[in-house]
Amino acid sequence: MHPRLQAIYLVRCDAPAIEERARAIAVEQSVEMPLSAIADDFVRSQIVGRVEGITERQDRLFAVRISLAAETAGRDPGQLVNMLFGNTSLHEDVELADVVLPKDLIACFGGPRHGLHELRRRVGAPARALTSSPLKPQGLPPAGLARLAEDFAQAGIDYIKDDHGLAEQAYSPFLARLEAVARALRNLEQRSGRAARYVPSLSGDLDTMRSQIAAAKDVGVDTVMVAPMIAGVSNFHRLICENPTVAFIAHPTL
Amino acid sequence: MHPRLQAIYLVRCDAPAIEERARAIAVEQSVEMPLSAIADDFVRSQIVGRVEGITERQDRLFAVRISLAAETAGRDPGQLVNMLFGNTSLHEDVELADVVLPKDLIACFGGPRHGLHELRRRVGAPARALTSSPLKPQGLPPAGLARLAEDFAQAGIDYIKDDHGLAEQAYSPFLARLEAVARALRNLEQRSGRAARYVPSLSGDLDTMRSQIAAAKDVGVDTVMVAPMIAGVSNFHRLICENPTVAFIAHPTL
Repeated sequence: MHPRLQAIYLVRCDAPAIEERARAIAVEQSVEMPLSAIADDFVRSQIVGRVEGITERQDRLFAVRISLAAETAGRDPGQLVNMLFGNTSLHEDVELADVVLPKDLIACFGGPRHGLHELRRRVGAPARALTSSPLKPQGLPPAGLARLAEDFAQAGIDYIKDDHGLAEQAYSPFLARLEAVARALRNLEQRSGRAARYVPSLSGDLDTMRSQIAAAKDVGVDTVMVAPMIAGVSNFHRLICENPTVAFIAHPTL
Repeated sequence: MHPRLQAIYLVRCDAPAIEERARAIAVEQSVEMPLSAIADDFVRSQIVGRVEGITERQDRLFAVRISLAAETAGRDPGQLVNMLFGNTSLHEDVELADVVLPKDLIACFGGPRHGLHELRRRVGAPARALTSSPLKPQGLPPAGLARLAEDFAQAGIDYIKDDHGLAEQAYSPFLARLEAVARALRNLEQRSGRAARYVPSLSGDLDTMRSQIAAAKDVGVDTVMVAPMIAGVSNFHRLICENPTVAFIAHPTL
Protein backbone atom coordinates (compact mmCIF):
# COMPACT_ATOMS: atom_id res chain seq x y z
CA MET A 1 0.00 0.00 0.00
CA HIS A 2 1.56 3.25 -1.14
CA PRO A 3 1.13 6.24 1.20
CA ARG A 4 -0.98 9.08 -0.21
CA LEU A 5 -1.27 12.76 0.52
CA GLN A 6 -4.66 14.40 0.89
CA ALA A 7 -5.54 17.77 -0.63
CA ILE A 8 -8.81 19.45 0.34
CA TYR A 9 -10.13 21.91 -2.24
CA LEU A 10 -13.07 24.27 -1.82
CA VAL A 11 -15.02 24.16 -5.07
CA ARG A 12 -17.86 26.47 -6.16
CA CYS A 13 -20.19 24.36 -8.24
CA ASP A 14 -23.85 23.49 -8.78
CA ALA A 15 -24.77 20.44 -6.69
CA PRO A 16 -25.67 18.10 -9.59
CA ALA A 17 -22.26 18.74 -11.21
CA ILE A 18 -19.95 18.41 -8.18
CA GLU A 19 -19.13 14.70 -8.53
CA GLU A 20 -17.97 15.08 -12.10
CA ARG A 21 -16.12 18.32 -11.24
CA ALA A 22 -14.32 16.56 -8.36
CA ARG A 23 -13.23 13.70 -10.63
CA ALA A 24 -11.98 16.23 -13.19
CA ILE A 25 -9.90 17.96 -10.51
CA ALA A 26 -8.44 14.63 -9.34
CA VAL A 27 -7.33 13.87 -12.90
CA GLU A 28 -6.10 17.42 -13.56
CA GLN A 29 -3.99 17.48 -10.40
CA SER A 30 -2.29 14.16 -11.18
CA VAL A 31 -2.06 12.89 -14.76
CA GLU A 32 -3.78 15.76 -16.62
CA MET A 33 -5.06 13.63 -19.46
CA PRO A 34 -8.04 11.42 -20.39
CA LEU A 35 -7.92 8.18 -18.41
CA SER A 36 -8.92 6.27 -21.54
CA ALA A 37 -5.52 7.14 -23.04
CA ILE A 38 -3.58 5.63 -20.09
CA ALA A 39 -2.63 1.98 -20.54
CA ASP A 40 -0.08 1.67 -17.69
CA ASP A 41 -1.44 -0.23 -14.64
CA PHE A 42 0.78 1.55 -12.08
CA VAL A 43 -0.33 4.95 -13.35
CA ARG A 44 -4.01 4.00 -13.39
CA SER A 45 -4.00 2.39 -9.93
CA GLN A 46 -1.57 4.66 -8.03
CA ILE A 47 -0.77 7.93 -9.79
CA VAL A 48 -4.23 9.03 -10.90
CA GLY A 49 -5.77 11.23 -8.18
CA ARG A 50 -8.73 9.80 -6.27
CA VAL A 51 -11.81 11.57 -4.97
CA GLU A 52 -11.94 10.45 -1.32
CA GLY A 53 -14.86 12.55 -0.18
CA ILE A 54 -17.18 15.44 -1.01
CA THR A 55 -18.88 17.55 1.69
CA GLU A 56 -21.31 20.40 1.14
CA ARG A 57 -20.18 23.44 3.15
CA GLN A 58 -22.68 26.00 1.92
CA ASP A 59 -25.04 26.31 -1.01
CA ARG A 60 -22.84 25.81 -4.11
CA LEU A 61 -19.66 25.40 -2.03
CA PHE A 62 -18.13 21.94 -1.57
CA ALA A 63 -15.07 20.60 0.21
CA VAL A 64 -13.52 18.00 -2.09
CA ARG A 65 -10.88 15.68 -0.62
CA ILE A 66 -8.51 14.28 -3.22
CA SER A 67 -5.67 11.87 -2.55
CA LEU A 68 -2.45 11.85 -4.57
CA ALA A 69 0.43 9.38 -4.51
CA ALA A 70 3.17 10.65 -2.16
CA GLU A 71 5.70 9.62 -4.84
CA THR A 72 4.45 12.44 -7.06
CA ALA A 73 5.95 15.00 -4.64
CA GLY A 74 9.29 13.23 -4.59
CA ARG A 75 11.19 14.62 -1.60
CA ASP A 76 11.00 18.22 -2.78
CA PRO A 77 8.81 20.86 -1.09
CA GLY A 78 8.61 22.82 -4.38
CA GLN A 79 7.26 19.81 -6.23
CA LEU A 80 4.72 19.31 -3.40
CA VAL A 81 3.50 22.88 -4.02
CA ASN A 82 3.41 22.11 -7.73
CA MET A 83 1.22 19.03 -7.15
CA LEU A 84 -1.12 20.76 -4.69
CA PHE A 85 -1.70 23.99 -6.60
CA GLY A 86 -1.03 22.85 -10.16
CA ASN A 87 -3.48 23.77 -12.87
CA THR A 88 -6.39 24.26 -10.47
CA SER A 89 -4.59 27.41 -9.34
CA LEU A 90 -5.73 28.87 -12.68
CA HIS A 91 -9.39 28.16 -11.89
CA GLU A 92 -11.22 30.82 -9.91
CA ASP A 93 -13.80 28.34 -8.63
CA VAL A 94 -11.22 26.11 -6.88
CA GLU A 95 -9.22 26.98 -3.76
CA LEU A 96 -6.70 24.79 -1.92
CA ALA A 97 -7.99 24.81 1.67
CA ASP A 98 -6.00 22.16 3.52
CA VAL A 99 -3.42 19.40 3.16
CA VAL A 100 -2.77 16.20 5.10
CA LEU A 101 0.66 14.68 4.50
CA PRO A 102 1.75 11.09 5.12
CA LYS A 103 4.22 10.59 7.98
CA ASP A 104 7.30 9.94 5.85
CA LEU A 105 6.81 13.16 3.89
CA ILE A 106 6.47 15.13 7.16
CA ALA A 107 9.65 13.46 8.45
CA CYS A 108 11.44 14.36 5.21
CA PHE A 109 10.47 18.03 5.30
CA GLY A 110 10.69 18.47 9.09
CA GLY A 111 8.71 20.99 11.11
CA PRO A 112 9.61 23.86 13.44
CA ARG A 113 13.11 22.93 14.55
CA HIS A 114 13.90 25.24 17.43
CA GLY A 115 10.41 26.21 18.48
CA LEU A 116 9.17 28.89 20.83
CA HIS A 117 10.94 27.25 23.78
CA GLU A 118 14.37 27.74 22.20
CA LEU A 119 13.55 31.30 21.08
CA ARG A 120 12.59 32.04 24.71
CA ARG A 121 15.71 30.36 26.05
CA ARG A 122 18.02 32.37 23.79
CA VAL A 123 16.84 35.70 25.19
CA GLY A 124 16.36 34.57 28.79
CA ALA A 125 12.56 34.86 28.74
CA PRO A 126 11.36 31.42 29.87
CA ALA A 127 8.02 32.65 31.28
CA ARG A 128 7.54 36.41 30.80
CA ALA A 129 6.05 37.93 27.65
CA LEU A 130 8.39 37.49 24.70
CA THR A 131 8.62 40.74 22.72
CA SER A 132 9.43 41.52 19.11
CA SER A 133 9.30 44.60 16.89
CA PRO A 134 9.99 45.26 13.22
CA LEU A 135 12.79 47.68 12.32
CA LYS A 136 11.48 50.32 9.91
CA PRO A 137 10.97 52.45 7.86
CA GLN A 138 13.00 51.37 4.87
CA GLY A 139 14.89 54.32 3.41
CA LEU A 140 16.80 55.03 6.64
CA PRO A 141 20.57 54.52 6.41
CA PRO A 142 22.19 51.70 8.44
CA ALA A 143 23.23 54.08 11.24
CA GLY A 144 19.65 55.32 11.64
CA LEU A 145 18.29 51.78 11.81
CA ALA A 146 21.03 50.83 14.29
CA ARG A 147 20.06 53.72 16.61
CA LEU A 148 16.43 52.65 16.42
CA ALA A 149 17.37 49.02 17.18
CA GLU A 150 19.31 50.19 20.23
CA ASP A 151 16.24 52.15 21.43
CA PHE A 152 14.09 49.04 20.98
CA ALA A 153 16.57 46.88 22.90
CA GLN A 154 16.77 49.37 25.74
CA ALA A 155 12.98 49.44 25.88
CA GLY A 156 12.92 45.68 26.43
CA ILE A 157 12.34 44.21 22.97
CA ASP A 158 13.82 40.69 22.65
CA TYR A 159 13.77 40.11 18.88
CA ILE A 160 14.25 43.10 16.58
CA LYS A 161 13.41 41.95 13.08
CA ASP A 162 13.95 43.76 9.79
CA ASP A 163 10.75 45.02 8.28
CA HIS A 164 10.08 42.70 5.33
CA GLY A 165 10.61 45.66 2.98
CA LEU A 166 14.30 45.86 3.98
CA ALA A 167 16.48 44.05 1.43
CA GLU A 168 19.60 44.74 -0.66
CA GLN A 169 18.95 48.43 -1.33
CA ALA A 170 21.32 51.26 -2.19
CA TYR A 171 20.20 53.34 0.80
CA SER A 172 20.83 50.49 3.25
CA PRO A 173 22.79 47.53 1.85
CA PHE A 174 22.35 44.24 3.73
CA LEU A 175 25.96 43.92 4.94
CA ALA A 176 26.25 47.51 6.15
CA ARG A 177 22.90 47.26 7.94
CA LEU A 178 23.78 43.89 9.49
CA GLU A 179 27.07 45.15 10.84
CA ALA A 180 25.71 48.46 12.13
CA VAL A 181 22.75 46.90 13.96
CA ALA A 182 24.74 43.96 15.34
CA ARG A 183 27.45 46.32 16.62
CA ALA A 184 24.92 48.64 18.27
CA LEU A 185 23.25 45.72 20.08
CA ARG A 186 26.60 44.18 21.05
CA ASN A 187 27.77 47.48 22.55
CA LEU A 188 24.51 47.86 24.46
CA GLU A 189 24.83 44.34 25.85
CA GLN A 190 28.37 45.07 27.07
CA ARG A 191 27.21 48.29 28.75
CA SER A 192 23.93 47.13 30.25
CA GLY A 193 23.69 43.36 29.99
CA ARG A 194 20.51 43.78 27.95
CA ALA A 195 20.85 41.10 25.21
CA ALA A 196 18.42 41.65 22.32
CA ARG A 197 18.58 39.63 19.12
CA TYR A 198 18.69 41.16 15.62
CA VAL A 199 16.77 39.23 12.94
CA PRO A 200 17.91 40.37 9.47
CA SER A 201 15.70 39.68 6.46
CA LEU A 202 17.25 37.56 3.68
CA SER A 203 16.62 38.35 0.02
CA GLY A 204 17.89 37.50 -3.45
CA ASP A 205 18.69 34.09 -4.90
CA LEU A 206 19.90 31.03 -2.97
CA ASP A 207 23.58 31.96 -3.26
CA THR A 208 22.92 35.49 -2.02
CA MET A 209 20.91 34.20 0.93
CA ARG A 210 23.70 31.75 1.77
CA SER A 211 26.25 34.57 1.88
CA GLN A 212 23.87 36.71 3.96
CA ILE A 213 23.49 33.88 6.51
CA ALA A 214 27.27 33.38 6.61
CA ALA A 215 27.77 37.11 7.27
CA ALA A 216 25.08 37.04 9.95
CA LYS A 217 26.78 34.14 11.73
CA ASP A 218 30.08 36.02 11.58
CA VAL A 219 28.63 38.84 13.68
CA GLY A 220 26.91 36.48 16.13
CA VAL A 221 23.40 36.63 14.64
CA ASP A 222 21.56 33.30 14.94
CA THR A 223 18.03 34.23 13.82
CA VAL A 224 17.05 35.32 10.31
CA MET A 225 13.83 36.10 8.47
CA VAL A 226 12.86 34.76 5.05
CA ALA A 227 9.80 34.89 2.81
CA PRO A 228 9.61 31.22 1.71
CA MET A 229 7.14 31.80 -1.13
CA ILE A 230 9.45 34.41 -2.66
CA ALA A 231 12.68 32.49 -2.01
CA GLY A 232 11.00 29.33 -3.30
CA VAL A 233 10.18 26.64 -0.75
CA SER A 234 12.86 24.24 -2.09
CA ASN A 235 15.53 26.89 -1.51
CA PHE A 236 14.08 27.69 1.91
CA HIS A 237 14.32 24.00 2.81
CA ARG A 238 17.91 23.87 1.57
CA LEU A 239 18.89 26.87 3.72
CA ILE A 240 17.34 25.28 6.79
CA CYS A 241 19.16 21.98 6.20
CA GLU A 242 22.47 23.80 5.72
CA ASN A 243 22.15 25.91 8.89
CA PRO A 244 20.96 23.73 11.79
CA THR A 245 21.81 26.26 14.53
CA VAL A 246 20.01 29.17 12.86
CA ALA A 247 16.35 29.89 13.68
CA PHE A 248 14.29 30.95 10.67
CA ILE A 249 11.29 33.25 11.02
CA ALA A 250 8.98 33.17 8.01
CA HIS A 251 7.13 36.10 6.43
CA PRO A 252 4.13 35.65 4.11
CA THR A 253 4.38 38.52 1.55
CA LEU A 254 2.70 36.82 -1.40
CA MET B 1 14.07 63.01 -9.96
CA HIS B 2 14.12 59.41 -8.82
CA PRO B 3 12.37 56.91 -11.14
CA ARG B 4 9.29 55.25 -9.67
CA LEU B 5 7.43 52.06 -10.37
CA GLN B 6 3.66 52.03 -10.64
CA ALA B 7 1.46 49.36 -9.09
CA ILE B 8 -2.24 49.25 -9.96
CA TYR B 9 -4.42 47.59 -7.32
CA LEU B 10 -8.10 46.73 -7.65
CA VAL B 11 -9.73 47.64 -4.35
CA ARG B 12 -13.26 46.78 -3.18
CA CYS B 13 -14.41 49.67 -1.04
CA ASP B 14 -17.32 52.04 -0.41
CA ALA B 15 -16.89 55.18 -2.50
CA PRO B 16 -16.61 57.68 0.41
CA ALA B 17 -13.78 55.63 1.93
CA ILE B 18 -11.63 54.94 -1.15
CA GLU B 19 -9.29 57.93 -0.85
CA GLU B 20 -8.32 57.08 2.69
CA ARG B 21 -8.06 53.39 1.81
CA ALA B 22 -5.75 54.21 -1.14
CA ARG B 23 -3.48 56.30 1.08
CA ALA B 24 -3.37 53.47 3.63
CA ILE B 25 -2.31 51.01 0.90
CA ALA B 26 0.41 53.40 -0.33
CA VAL B 27 1.83 53.61 3.20
CA GLU B 28 1.43 49.86 3.87
CA GLN B 29 3.24 48.91 0.65
CA SER B 30 6.21 51.15 1.38
CA VAL B 31 7.06 52.21 4.94
CA GLU B 32 4.32 50.36 6.87
CA MET B 33 4.14 52.82 9.73
CA PRO B 34 2.43 56.09 10.71
CA LEU B 35 3.87 58.97 8.69
CA SER B 36 3.86 61.11 11.85
CA ALA B 37 6.61 58.86 13.26
CA ILE B 38 8.93 59.40 10.27
CA ALA B 39 11.36 62.30 10.65
CA ASP B 40 13.72 61.50 7.76
CA ASP B 41 13.24 63.80 4.72
CA PHE B 42 14.42 61.27 2.12
CA VAL B 43 11.99 58.65 3.45
CA ARG B 44 9.07 61.11 3.55
CA SER B 45 9.70 62.56 0.08
CA GLN B 46 10.87 59.47 -1.85
CA ILE B 47 10.22 56.17 -0.10
CA VAL B 48 6.65 56.65 1.08
CA GLY B 49 4.26 55.33 -1.58
CA ARG B 50 2.14 57.91 -3.42
CA VAL B 51 -1.44 57.64 -4.62
CA GLU B 52 -1.15 58.72 -8.28
CA GLY B 53 -4.73 58.10 -9.33
CA ILE B 54 -8.05 56.48 -8.42
CA THR B 55 -10.56 55.31 -11.06
CA GLU B 56 -13.96 53.78 -10.40
CA ARG B 57 -14.29 50.56 -12.42
CA GLN B 58 -17.63 49.31 -11.10
CA ASP B 59 -19.81 50.03 -8.13
CA ARG B 60 -17.52 49.53 -5.09
CA LEU B 61 -14.52 48.53 -7.25
CA PHE B 62 -11.69 51.00 -7.78
CA ALA B 63 -8.38 50.91 -9.65
CA VAL B 64 -5.81 52.58 -7.41
CA ARG B 65 -2.46 53.53 -8.97
CA ILE B 66 0.35 53.77 -6.43
CA SER B 67 3.92 54.74 -7.21
CA LEU B 68 6.88 53.36 -5.25
CA ALA B 69 10.55 54.36 -5.39
CA ALA B 70 12.42 52.06 -7.80
CA GLU B 71 15.22 51.88 -5.20
CA THR B 72 12.93 49.86 -2.92
CA ALA B 73 13.13 46.92 -5.36
CA GLY B 74 16.92 47.08 -5.51
CA ARG B 75 17.95 45.04 -8.54
CA ASP B 76 16.27 41.85 -7.32
CA PRO B 77 13.11 40.42 -8.95
CA GLY B 78 12.18 38.72 -5.66
CA GLN B 79 12.28 42.01 -3.80
CA LEU B 80 10.14 43.55 -6.55
CA VAL B 81 7.53 40.85 -5.88
CA ASN B 82 7.87 41.57 -2.17
CA MET B 83 7.19 45.29 -2.73
CA LEU B 84 4.28 44.74 -5.12
CA PHE B 85 2.42 42.07 -3.16
CA GLY B 86 3.59 42.82 0.37
CA ASN B 87 1.07 43.01 3.15
CA THR B 88 -1.84 43.83 0.84
CA SER B 89 -1.57 40.21 -0.31
CA LEU B 90 -3.15 39.38 3.06
CA HIS B 91 -6.19 41.59 2.35
CA GLU B 92 -9.02 39.97 0.44
CA ASP B 93 -10.32 43.33 -0.79
CA VAL B 94 -7.08 44.24 -2.62
CA GLU B 95 -5.72 42.62 -5.78
CA LEU B 96 -2.56 43.52 -7.70
CA ALA B 97 -3.83 44.06 -11.26
CA ASP B 98 -0.94 45.62 -13.18
CA VAL B 99 2.58 47.00 -12.91
CA VAL B 100 4.48 49.62 -14.89
CA LEU B 101 8.25 49.51 -14.38
CA PRO B 102 10.76 52.30 -15.04
CA LYS B 103 13.12 51.70 -17.97
CA ASP B 104 16.23 50.96 -15.93
CA LEU B 105 14.47 48.25 -13.94
CA ILE B 106 13.25 46.63 -17.18
CA ALA B 107 16.79 46.79 -18.54
CA CYS B 108 18.11 45.20 -15.35
CA PHE B 109 15.64 42.30 -15.39
CA GLY B 110 15.56 41.81 -19.17
CA GLY B 111 12.66 40.39 -21.14
CA PRO B 112 12.19 37.42 -23.48
CA ARG B 113 15.72 36.79 -24.68
CA HIS B 114 15.38 34.39 -27.58
CA GLY B 115 11.77 35.01 -28.52
CA LEU B 116 9.45 33.13 -30.82
CA HIS B 117 11.68 33.87 -33.82
CA GLU B 118 14.61 31.95 -32.33
CA LEU B 119 12.37 29.08 -31.17
CA ARG B 120 11.10 28.84 -34.77
CA ARG B 121 14.61 29.03 -36.20
CA ARG B 122 15.88 26.22 -34.00
CA VAL B 123 13.36 23.72 -35.35
CA GLY B 124 13.32 24.97 -38.94
CA ALA B 125 9.78 26.34 -38.78
CA PRO B 126 10.12 29.97 -39.92
CA ALA B 127 6.56 30.30 -41.22
CA ARG B 128 4.52 27.11 -40.71
CA ALA B 129 2.59 26.33 -37.53
CA LEU B 130 4.95 25.72 -34.63
CA THR B 131 3.84 22.69 -32.62
CA SER B 132 4.32 21.61 -29.02
CA SER B 133 2.95 18.88 -26.80
CA PRO B 134 3.36 17.96 -23.14
CA LEU B 135 4.88 14.57 -22.31
CA LYS B 136 2.62 12.71 -19.86
CA PRO B 137 1.30 11.02 -17.78
CA GLN B 138 3.68 11.10 -14.85
CA GLY B 139 4.15 7.63 -13.41
CA LEU B 140 5.48 6.18 -16.68
CA PRO B 141 9.12 5.02 -16.55
CA PRO B 142 11.73 6.88 -18.64
CA ALA B 143 11.59 4.30 -21.44
CA GLY B 144 7.82 4.72 -21.75
CA LEU B 145 8.10 8.49 -21.92
CA ALA B 146 10.93 8.20 -24.46
CA ARG B 147 8.75 6.01 -26.74
CA LEU B 148 5.94 8.53 -26.46
CA ALA B 149 8.33 11.41 -27.26
CA GLU B 150 9.50 9.54 -30.35
CA ASP B 151 5.88 9.09 -31.47
CA PHE B 152 5.26 12.82 -30.97
CA ALA B 153 8.38 13.71 -32.96
CA GLN B 154 7.43 11.39 -35.81
CA ALA B 155 3.96 12.96 -35.84
CA GLY B 156 5.54 16.38 -36.42
CA ILE B 157 5.70 17.94 -32.94
CA ASP B 158 8.56 20.49 -32.68
CA TYR B 159 8.86 21.02 -28.92
CA ILE B 160 8.06 18.09 -26.62
CA LYS B 161 7.89 19.47 -23.10
CA ASP B 162 7.68 17.60 -19.82
CA ASP B 163 4.27 17.81 -18.23
CA HIS B 164 4.73 20.19 -15.28
CA GLY B 165 4.01 17.27 -12.93
CA LEU B 166 7.23 15.51 -14.02
CA ALA B 167 10.02 16.21 -11.52
CA GLU B 168 12.60 14.23 -9.51
CA GLN B 169 10.46 11.18 -8.81
CA ALA B 170 11.41 7.59 -8.01
CA TYR B 171 9.43 6.21 -10.96
CA SER B 172 11.16 8.53 -13.43
CA PRO B 173 14.24 10.36 -12.09
CA PHE B 174 15.21 13.53 -13.98
CA LEU B 175 18.56 12.27 -15.29
CA ALA B 176 17.26 8.91 -16.47
CA ARG B 177 14.31 10.58 -18.18
CA LEU B 178 16.49 13.25 -19.78
CA GLU B 179 18.90 10.71 -21.19
CA ALA B 180 16.22 8.31 -22.44
CA VAL B 181 14.17 11.00 -24.20
CA ALA B 182 17.19 12.82 -25.64
CA ARG B 183 18.60 9.52 -26.98
CA ALA B 184 15.29 8.53 -28.56
CA LEU B 185 14.98 11.89 -30.33
CA ARG B 186 18.64 11.85 -31.41
CA ASN B 187 18.25 8.37 -32.90
CA LEU B 188 15.11 9.44 -34.72
CA GLU B 189 16.87 12.49 -36.14
CA GLN B 190 19.72 10.30 -37.44
CA ARG B 191 17.26 7.89 -39.07
CA SER B 192 14.77 10.37 -40.49
CA GLY B 193 16.19 13.90 -40.24
CA ARG B 194 13.17 14.87 -38.12
CA ALA B 195 14.68 17.13 -35.41
CA ALA B 196 12.30 17.65 -32.48
CA ARG B 197 13.40 19.40 -29.29
CA TYR B 198 12.93 17.94 -25.79
CA VAL B 199 12.07 20.49 -23.06
CA PRO B 200 12.71 18.94 -19.63
CA SER B 201 11.07 20.51 -16.57
CA LEU B 202 13.45 21.75 -13.84
CA SER B 203 12.64 21.27 -10.17
CA GLY B 204 14.23 21.50 -6.72
CA ASP B 205 16.47 24.22 -5.32
CA LEU B 206 18.80 26.47 -7.31
CA ASP B 207 21.74 24.04 -7.10
CA THR B 208 19.61 21.15 -8.29
CA MET B 209 18.26 23.19 -11.20
CA ARG B 210 21.81 24.21 -12.13
CA SER B 211 22.90 20.58 -12.27
CA GLN B 212 19.79 19.68 -14.28
CA ILE B 213 20.60 22.39 -16.85
CA ALA B 214 24.22 21.24 -17.04
CA ALA B 215 23.06 17.66 -17.68
CA ALA B 216 20.60 18.89 -20.31
CA LYS B 217 23.34 20.79 -22.14
CA ASP B 218 25.52 17.66 -22.04
CA VAL B 219 22.95 15.75 -24.11
CA GLY B 220 22.33 18.63 -26.51
CA VAL B 221 19.14 19.99 -24.96
CA ASP B 222 18.90 23.80 -25.23
CA THR B 223 15.34 24.47 -24.01
CA VAL B 224 14.07 23.88 -20.47
CA MET B 225 10.88 24.56 -18.55
CA VAL B 226 10.67 26.16 -15.11
CA ALA B 227 7.89 27.35 -12.79
CA PRO B 228 9.32 30.74 -11.71
CA MET B 229 6.91 31.25 -8.81
CA ILE B 230 7.91 27.89 -7.32
CA ALA B 231 11.65 28.25 -8.06
CA GLY B 232 11.52 31.81 -6.73
CA VAL B 233 11.86 34.61 -9.30
CA SER B 234 15.33 35.62 -8.04
CA ASN B 235 16.59 32.09 -8.66
CA PHE B 236 14.86 32.00 -12.04
CA HIS B 237 16.63 35.24 -12.97
CA ARG B 238 19.96 33.81 -11.82
CA LEU B 239 19.51 30.68 -13.97
CA ILE B 240 18.73 32.80 -17.02
CA CYS B 241 21.80 35.01 -16.49
CA GLU B 242 24.02 31.94 -16.09
CA ASN B 243 22.74 30.19 -19.23
CA PRO B 244 22.52 32.68 -22.11
CA THR B 245 22.15 30.03 -24.86
CA VAL B 246 19.32 28.18 -23.13
CA ALA B 247 15.70 29.12 -23.86
CA PHE B 248 13.44 29.01 -20.78
CA ILE B 249 9.75 28.24 -21.06
CA ALA B 250 7.76 29.29 -17.98
CA HIS B 251 4.89 27.43 -16.35
CA PRO B 252 2.43 29.11 -13.96
CA THR B 253 1.47 26.40 -11.40
CA LEU B 254 0.78 28.64 -8.41
